[in-house]
Amino acid sequence: MAFLWIPFFIALHFSTAVESSHCAVNGFPIVRNISEIPQDNYGRQGLSHITVAGSALHGFKEIEVWLQTFAPGARTPIHRHSCEEIFVVLKGSGTLYLASNSHKNYPGSPQEFPIFKNSTFFVPVNDAHQVWNTNEHEDLQVLVVISRPPVKVFIYGDWNMPHTATRLKFPYYWDEACYQTSPTKDEL
Amino acid sequence: MAFLWIPFFIALHFSTAVESSHCAVNGFPIVRNISEIPQDNYGRQGLSHITVAGSALHGFKEIEVWLQTFAPGARTPIHRHSCEEIFVVLKGSGTLYLASNSHKNYPGSPQEFPIFKNSTFFVPVNDAHQVWNTNEHEDLQVLVVISRPPVKVFIYGDWNMPHTATRLKFPYYWDEACYQTSPTKDEL
Repeated sequence: MAFLWIPFFIALHFSTAVESSHCAVNGFPIVRNISEIPQDNYGRQGLSHITVAGSALHGFKEIEVWLQTFAPGARTPIHRHSCEEIFVVLKGSGTLYLASNSHKNYPGSPQEFPIFKNSTFFVPVNDAHQVWNTNEHEDLQVLVVISRPPVKVFIYGDWNMPHTATRLKFPYYWDEACYQTSPTKDEL
Repeated sequence: MAFLWIPFFIALHFSTAVESSHCAVNGFPIVRNISEIPQDNYGRQGLSHITVAGSALHGFKEIEVWLQTFAPGARTPIHRHSCEEIFVVLKGSGTLYLASNSHKNYPGSPQEFPIFKNSTFFVPVNDAHQVWNTNEHEDLQVLVVISRPPVKVFIYGDWNMPHTATRLKFPYYWDEACYQTSPTKDEL
């Protein structure tokens, strides 16, 4: 009955082939067409995420660039991370919610910052924040630049959750498939 | 005759005021309109450079983002730097000239890579390269992301100049005005 395993091995073979071409840490083209880079929502409704240049996927050690599109109403979780993060808004508008570190045990009520096409904004290191497409009529598209990849995200259930009760999500969704294939590197 | 000095002191006062508002290392808005950020060509013909998020200007320590527009025919010098560098092409097309490190004493003839709207490309650390708007009919606009700011650029006179004969340009043109005002930081 060994022949019953054949489809399984064929499936395994193709799965491995797809993964190795996707997670191309060792060698990938100098120039790539962003339209041809895979996008996914990683289970987050209304999100389209493209890793333009990544640590786990492409071997960058110091910076990472994402292209993210949020459908109307779509948003990030409330989260923080200990890296620098800079956004450039390519399309649409929305709101940045930001709770600057006020030495409390939890973020507390965030400040609201309108963000808009051709604006840039940044998130201070370790400040809890959330990016939300609050424009009902248009997608929000942003280029995101982070340092110290791959990103280590601490997620809050709400703005009153103690910093110490947050959940670490590492590797993050878009790095999970490729993280195991990345070479050993120093902890940053 | 002391009154002759008055215009000098007035000029000095305004110069200092302008510089301090431009070089806002300590505190600048979370969200900024890129259209309102100063642009300059820094003496490089056909270039428009905007520091979207900078080390010397804004206090970032790990990443820097520039928006650069090259008129037809405009180009960077042939240069190298020991940081990661990722480009996203927003408009136009052109050519990346890249001499991968082949363990020679000089870069040698570069490879040519066509770059185009909605493409991304990267420059391997320390490889000599040049970005050139070789499209005669359209501006080339790129977002540039670098690590380890502020950038330390080694400039080649041509592709056959020995690596050891290159000229270090530090601080680079767009950082010069503000570099002295940045806080002391560790050498990266």
